[in-house]
Amino acid sequence: MSGESKSKKSVAEQRSEKSLFDRIWTLAYHRGFVFPSAEIYGGIAGIYDLGPLGAKMKNNLIQAWREFFVLKEVNPPVYELDGSTILPYEALKASGHLDSFTDPTVNCLKCKKVMRADHLIEDSLGLYVEGMTPEQLTRIIRENRLVCPECKGDLSDVSVFNLMLGVKVGPAGGQTAFLRPETAQDIFMDFKRVQQSMRAKLPFGIAQIGKSYRNEISPRQGLIRIREFTQMEIEMFIHPKEIGNHPSFYMVKDTKIRILTREQQKRGEKEPLEMTASEFLERNILPNPYMAYYLAKETIFYQSLGIPYEKFHFRHMMPEETPFYSGGNFDLEVELSIGRKEIVGNAYRTNYDLSNHMKKSGKDLSISIDGEKIIPEVVEPSFGVERAIYCILEHCFREDDGRGWTWFQFPPKIAPVKALVLPLVRKEPLTDIAFKTYETLKKNGLEVEYDDRGSVGKRYARGDEIGIPYCVTIDYDTVKANTVTIRDRDSRKQTVVKRDDLVEILFKLICGNIEFNTLL
Amino acid sequence: MSGESKSKKSVAEQRSEKSLFDRIWTLAYHRGFVFPSAEIYGGIAGIYDLGPLGAKMKNNLIQAWREFFVLKEVNPPVYELDGSTILPYEALKASGHLDSFTDPTVNCLKCKKVMRADHLIEDSLGLYVEGMTPEQLTRIIRENRLVCPECKGDLSDVSVFNLMLGVKVGPAGGQTAFLRPETAQDIFMDFKRVQQSMRAKLPFGIAQIGKSYRNEISPRQGLIRIREFTQMEIEMFIHPKEIGNHPSFYMVKDTKIRILTREQQKRGEKEPLEMTASEFLERNILPNPYMAYYLAKETIFYQSLGIPYEKFHFRHMMPEETPFYSGGNFDLEVELSIGRKEIVGNAYRTNYDLSNHMKKSGKDLSISIDGEKIIPEVVEPSFGVERAIYCILEHCFREDDGRGWTWFQFPPKIAPVKALVLPLVRKEPLTDIAFKTYETLKKNGLEVEYDDRGSVGKRYARGDEIGIPYCVTIDYDTVKANTVTIRDRDSRKQTVVKRDDLVEILFKLICGNIEFNTLL
Repeated sequence: MSGESKSKKSVAEQRSEKSLFDRIWTLAYHRGFVFPSAEIYGGIAGIYDLGPLGAKMKNNLIQAWREFFVLKEVNPPVYELDGSTILPYEALKASGHLDSFTDPTVNCLKCKKVMRADHLIEDSLGLYVEGMTPEQLTRIIRENRLVCPECKGDLSDVSVFNLMLGVKVGPAGGQTAFLRPETAQDIFMDFKRVQQSMRAKLPFGIAQIGKSYRNEISPRQGLIRIREFTQMEIEMFIHPKEIGNHPSFYMVKDTKIRILTREQQKRGEKEPLEMTASEFLERNILPNPYMAYYLAKETIFYQSLGIPYEKFHFRHMMPEETPFYSGGNFDLEVELSIGRKEIVGNAYRTNYDLSNHMKKSGKDLSISIDGEKIIPEVVEPSFGVERAIYCILEHCFREDDGRGWTWFQFPPKIAPVKALVLPLVRKEPLTDIAFKTYETLKKNGLEVEYDDRGSVGKRYARGDEIGIPYCVTIDYDTVKANTVTIRDRDSRKQTVVKRDDLVEILFKLICGNIEFNTLL
Repeated sequence: MSGESKSKKSVAEQRSEKSLFDRIWTLAYHRGFVFPSAEIYGGIAGIYDLGPLGAKMKNNLIQAWREFFVLKEVNPPVYELDGSTILPYEALKASGHLDSFTDPTVNCLKCKKVMRADHLIEDSLGLYVEGMTPEQLTRIIRENRLVCPECKGDLSDVSVFNLMLGVKVGPAGGQTAFLRPETAQDIFMDFKRVQQSMRAKLPFGIAQIGKSYRNEISPRQGLIRIREFTQMEIEMFIHPKEIGNHPSFYMVKDTKIRILTREQQKRGEKEPLEMTASEFLERNILPNPYMAYYLAKETIFYQSLGIPYEKFHFRHMMPEETPFYSGGNFDLEVELSIGRKEIVGNAYRTNYDLSNHMKKSGKDLSISIDGEKIIPEVVEPSFGVERAIYCILEHCFREDDGRGWTWFQFPPKIAPVKALVLPLVRKEPLTDIAFKTYETLKKNGLEVEYDDRGSVGKRYARGDEIGIPYCVTIDYDTVKANTVTIRDRDSRKQTVVKRDDLVEILFKLICGNIEFNTLL
């Protein structure tokens, strides 16, 4: 195990042998952030379990998101839904997923391998083929005489593969259904029920947090492209005449954000424009203040989780990447060692989904306002949880400051463990006082661990390695004077505080109400 | 809509027309606790969405559970896992679910209806057939000449129907997999990974909260028997030589619990025995202090959520209801208007699951202690979330105290909305001050709603109807003296407090740190 093995490789040795992605992935596996699901039976590609530390990070991320994007939102208010992951055939036929939620595939006629046709062409020829039909892709494969990259066998024509996972519900053959490919469809279908039961007036949002499923043809890159994943989505419903007025936009209007515009992309530029939310709005680069509001809030949110401002931006999606009904899509992309990856999709979905469900279901989902039937417009931010966790791991990973071990500089609110309690040595009464201190912190609702194995230095290293912001050491001064030593992960400085004040001080440090330096 | 419609039926009229279950179900539907999933397309039987209030209750329930059974548990500690819902064929073949997770069914040969054979026999003949083979059930059907209850058609032989929902993962036919029927299997498969990555010593627990799926043949009774549901499970891993020593049992040993013993059930008795946890242990009615610990904690937990002590008990499951390897199963059963329903299953699973997975996977899941290979024993409490929500709804429902409307007496911590803020009349400056008060409470993390529509009495009624514990009224004294009136849902008494103290007072009331009466 890392942190204590005698044969452990030095940070420098690891760096020379493994990519950053592999180093983080190995650490995440050994320290309990993520495991392959059902690993003892070989598992399923693209399906993972979050271990104890990963699960805590996920809970912390969800709680931070729920507070910032749901609970504390006053105007418009946001309601939360907890809908089913199994949806009937009719719903996904109507939403268009049955016909259009597909990827193009080719099979090798010799070794039978199945591949994404677009990835094969992009990897082999460097061509950009987003939005092309299967026929166009087949033509490119034939014209360039592409073969199977594994066995050089001939390739089939390109066909389309639906990414939804089907289930049959009920006895005797059963009713055809699917695992939802996004949480959004529950929200659209329940829109009228939520509006009526909550007596909600436009604008208002409906949020949902939960699992979605995509039968990826080739899952890859750890938590980046997986088959079972967690989404946090909001559909914001807006009176079409009021799309230009967001009642709380003023609160974020001066927030600086970075956008890679369509013009820039056409020119092949990589460095995004930086302006305030209201400037992007004035220049018509953003379609409405609802979109601008979310881009600004996301910029604030991800910085607070440890992803540096200059390491992410919003990319205005090109027309061929965007559904026909879209009024503008902006993906939040994070720069990683494995390339730029999307972790939030922001879509101005207009009234397409509600109108479409009205037509297909024959049910009236409009709202009567002053005698007029209104179909609201929708702006949707859609957040991926597992991808964000990987981004946080990579951007908080530190290995350059000469401590001799790697560490995670997690902001305290996302850190899976907030404090490590340790007796200076494993002797009474130190261990007894240390364990009682640990108990007190835990009973007060702090996520803490206790460690009395190995030298203090080893234990600091083990704590740093999983990003514990504070270590609390019980020593002989504790016995004499009832004081404890708090060590700060980032500065490695230490300070002595009264044991009776410990709970309050730790809470303040973790909430950011005081800086560690002020305690010195 | 309820709470304001002129044509609304009186409480007395509703009572004479509808069962309690139907009255609560109708209310839950109209006020946003639960909706049929994909209702606009006809939905799928046994699959529901939790609306805004149901979702909040679920979040509150999960948070209360996580604090009480996971985060604040010191010794043994409990780690949390967040595993996948899709598991490969091999895992569920090994666990026994593929062969044994079945229900007996019969089909009508005339109308093709599919039924649970055991339910048909129990309903028609009043016979108890738990644990019987398909052949035995077929014989009973033939001997008693049972026919289809719908069309009187002849019935098929009894066959077995597997309750797991299958999925095919990946392209080209795909890998056979299933939606997990319980969260427990992820935990057993990851046991060694968690133990190693957390350097955990026995005893320790692994908890998991998440969706599970059962393809019920006939879903029924709203949230009681559904196909997609949420579980909160803990597997507590114990050194086999230490099963008699729970390090924290002393904390709950004097807690009174109610158990319907096997002896009582054989005698046909319905009223459970009441003793303390340690007395049940001494009399060998409970197999070990780990089981006793959970039964005591569950007794405390469900009372704190509003289910009265005398309305639930633990039933020692009879041998024919229990797997062969079990060291004793105790179901927490709640008395409801629709009968006694299980909401927690407590199982002493011995070392069956780990031993079995070791054998089937060929992987070593034992722990080395002092040179010896130890396979831990397991005690498992398994909680159903949606069922518990229905139990809380029913046991908190009030319609007898002459207010003229029904209400929910939710304990504040489970109540979906903690306070309702209302201006006395819809006039400035009252509405402005009221909205700002609402905003302040929300920004402080309180779940509150704002309502300025209709008379104050109507608004109190609407708040009571969804169990909001406190109403905060802004009146002309607020303008003059900056005071607000707090109305207590349960007593309907009112008191005036300073507006500046409101946040603190509400937090104290909701946490139970002060009683409303002390404010009078």
